[in-house]
Amino acid sequence: MSPPNLIIIFADDLGYGDLSSFGHPTIKTPNLDRMAKEGQKWTNFYVGASVCTPSRAALLTGRLPIRSGMSSNKNRVLFPDSKHGLPSSEITLAEQLKNADYTTACIGKWHLGHKEEYLPLQHGFDYYFGIPYSNDMDIPQALLTEKGGYWEVVRDPKNNRIENFQVPLLQNNTEIERPANQNNITKRYTEETLKFIQKNRDKPFFIYLAHNLPHIPLFASEETLGKSSRGLYGDVVEEIDLGVGRILQTLKEEGLDKNTLVVFTSDNGPWLAFNEQGGSSGLLKAGKGMTWEGGMRVPTIFWYPEKIIPGVVDQIGSTMDLFHTFSNLAGVPLPNDRILDSYDLTPLLFHKQKGVREELFYYRGTELYAVRLGDFKAHFITQGEYGQFGPKVIQNPPLLYNLNHDPSEQYDIAEKYPEVIEKIKKVVEVHQDQMLAGEDQLKSRGSE
Amino acid sequence: MSPPNLIIIFADDLGYGDLSSFGHPTIKTPNLDRMAKEGQKWTNFYVGASVCTPSRAALLTGRLPIRSGMSSNKNRVLFPDSKHGLPSSEITLAEQLKNADYTTACIGKWHLGHKEEYLPLQHGFDYYFGIPYSNDMDIPQALLTEKGGYWEVVRDPKNNRIENFQVPLLQNNTEIERPANQNNITKRYTEETLKFIQKNRDKPFFIYLAHNLPHIPLFASEETLGKSSRGLYGDVVEEIDLGVGRILQTLKEEGLDKNTLVVFTSDNGPWLAFNEQGGSSGLLKAGKGMTWEGGMRVPTIFWYPEKIIPGVVDQIGSTMDLFHTFSNLAGVPLPNDRILDSYDLTPLLFHKQKGVREELFYYRGTELYAVRLGDFKAHFITQGEYGQFGPKVIQNPPLLYNLNHDPSEQYDIAEKYPEVIEKIKKVVEVHQDQMLAGEDQLKSRGSE
Repeated sequence: MSPPNLIIIFADDLGYGDLSSFGHPTIKTPNLDRMAKEGQKWTNFYVGASVCTPSRAALLTGRLPIRSGMSSNKNRVLFPDSKHGLPSSEITLAEQLKNADYTTACIGKWHLGHKEEYLPLQHGFDYYFGIPYSNDMDIPQALLTEKGGYWEVVRDPKNNRIENFQVPLLQNNTEIERPANQNNITKRYTEETLKFIQKNRDKPFFIYLAHNLPHIPLFASEETLGKSSRGLYGDVVEEIDLGVGRILQTLKEEGLDKNTLVVFTSDNGPWLAFNEQGGSSGLLKAGKGMTWEGGMRVPTIFWYPEKIIPGVVDQIGSTMDLFHTFSNLAGVPLPNDRILDSYDLTPLLFHKQKGVREELFYYRGTELYAVRLGDFKAHFITQGEYGQFGPKVIQNPPLLYNLNHDPSEQYDIAEKYPEVIEKIKKVVEVHQDQMLAGEDQLKSRGSE
Repeated sequence: MSPPNLIIIFADDLGYGDLSSFGHPTIKTPNLDRMAKEGQKWTNFYVGASVCTPSRAALLTGRLPIRSGMSSNKNRVLFPDSKHGLPSSEITLAEQLKNADYTTACIGKWHLGHKEEYLPLQHGFDYYFGIPYSNDMDIPQALLTEKGGYWEVVRDPKNNRIENFQVPLLQNNTEIERPANQNNITKRYTEETLKFIQKNRDKPFFIYLAHNLPHIPLFASEETLGKSSRGLYGDVVEEIDLGVGRILQTLKEEGLDKNTLVVFTSDNGPWLAFNEQGGSSGLLKAGKGMTWEGGMRVPTIFWYPEKIIPGVVDQIGSTMDLFHTFSNLAGVPLPNDRILDSYDLTPLLFHKQKGVREELFYYRGTELYAVRLGDFKAHFITQGEYGQFGPKVIQNPPLLYNLNHDPSEQYDIAEKYPEVIEKIKKVVEVHQDQMLAGEDQLKSRGSE
């Protein structure tokens, strides 16, 4: 049998609590809920960093972003005036799957370098369509000063053109629209995905669909605008959900649903600084930018009818594990010239076995803030972000939580379990001894 | 066709976020999740008060507990030395259904007066089996002082008898066990329910199954103890879930599933003061005892195969609405000699119509703290409890939240919507003008 098609649907700043099946009271996500019911809902699934650029680097390389130099203490993400991007020496999931003759597409947000040498086509993708970084970038300084508003979209009344977010839209290496018309961007990404599926139905394909939303500024197209009880943020999530429904439906119509694995997840927690325009991390603490659970645990669903054993999985997984898992499914050996932070999830997906991932490292830039080992998480440093959740604090002794008993990180049990702290400290020691940080790719900007 | 059988399964102190389908990451509730999938999951469903006694009075009478005198500013609930209980002048749901020849049972926690005149048999129930108040009561003073522990169960090493919670177990009006063996109390309540179903399969019945758990102290029987990733609290909830599965299965086996409406809900939010032994209100703020959402919004599921339109309902409902809804289903006219706070939910359950409940009153004792009107909630008074969430504060101007956009009550929008506040103030005025408070039934205790 030919290896399965592989699709990753990646939302931007969607919080752990923002899907109906993950507990949101007023956002309706019937397609994702059905996907979860037919497949596996993962409740302890993590990203490699709590902000865009390093999180995406982690997913595509199967490595902690500190290794590739894609996380930095100077700039947390890449900006339109950033000089670099994901080094060509890194092996992406797309390059890895090219070894098994997959046809590959990146549709949506890239954010791993917008200069040509860093774009998806130079990283193993056969096709690219999308905005190369965050949808809130490229704001003309004059507009920012005059109109003040950052998250309110300013439109030219004559032609409805978006004035304050002048981000480009690329097809392959070429700019085809600027400012990108974001009013229906989610729908357009979905439709590019459907076209790519239909065109490539006869060979194995890999699609990395990375929506720019629900990152602010928020946009919903006519069909969904004003429909959600949750307001504009809900409209946006419900449009993504609708897109998921159309993708699964198309897979069925093309007879591909029994040979396609679809993963839905998010790049980091919700951007709480934007009040009602930001999402919710549900019962988890804090959000985007932070190493509390709300920043790095994301709502995740695996779907592969008749292959995946349906259910709720509360063992630990990471977007970095997709590298190993997909390599296994495609029959491609892992690279042996570098350290990976990637585990094979297939025993959990297909055989109801126990997971092998026992530990998680929570970095902020290149500093290790917290470590999860089994049920326990120790915070060595805590720090808020965007004016919330306090300043940087070195926690000595570290804070300790049992995440399975206390997912909201409310009850510090360090005093009760000194032996667990010792064990985690040893894990940290080994990890840091072996750490070889890549050269910082995020630090150089503009005229520097 | 004969009217449907009616079953209420009421958990104690179970939080909004404590079921898998309501977003808990490590508590597994496959039976309740299936019930939600086959039926309706209600995400804006409320109780009439944030603590036991008044919440139960509200459910059984369809009236705000201030009307029956079952809420008080002196004692929040009834205690083993309380002198009174639910007045005989109140009409309970059981009495109401007796008018349509239902056979009625109360199994579990009563907490509406433990003296004989107040017990279930004197309030319309044909059968009672249960602990007449909270499972943490009747602690001998000496034990409380000596052993200090309140939530740690003290057992006699010789016979495993529980020493520190000497609560009685009643059958009808008779004490049959003291201290009640709580080690398997959830299972025993479930089995009493199954027996009652089997015995009464040929006539319409009403069962009010009010579990004493997951109120602390926590107990799980052998089958579930130590099984949940969430620890003891998870074991307890999973045992309740298992019981729900057995009840639905028995209904199917008896051929009653197509003619039985089952409602699952909780009496108030989680008891946060007990750390890992308390539950989670998920994305909602605060918990038991408070008028923030976490205190009064509860995870609720309606199940009635082939009758209820499956889905997620985010319109407003209340346990008080069961009085009107069940009366309608049984074909019994509502009493017309008193004010009810009860709406008919059948248009939402069976016809996908819009709900009629637009407003909710959040009382603490006999004081009105907050009011919900449509999407908006105004807090006129806020107050924490059990040393959490701050002292009593008169909010003037009131705090205002859009609960559908901001279920966590994070972003006060009072300044933006003065007209909404005015509208709510008018609702309050009318409500208070018409309010006739019942005589306080909770105040008299012991030697007073």
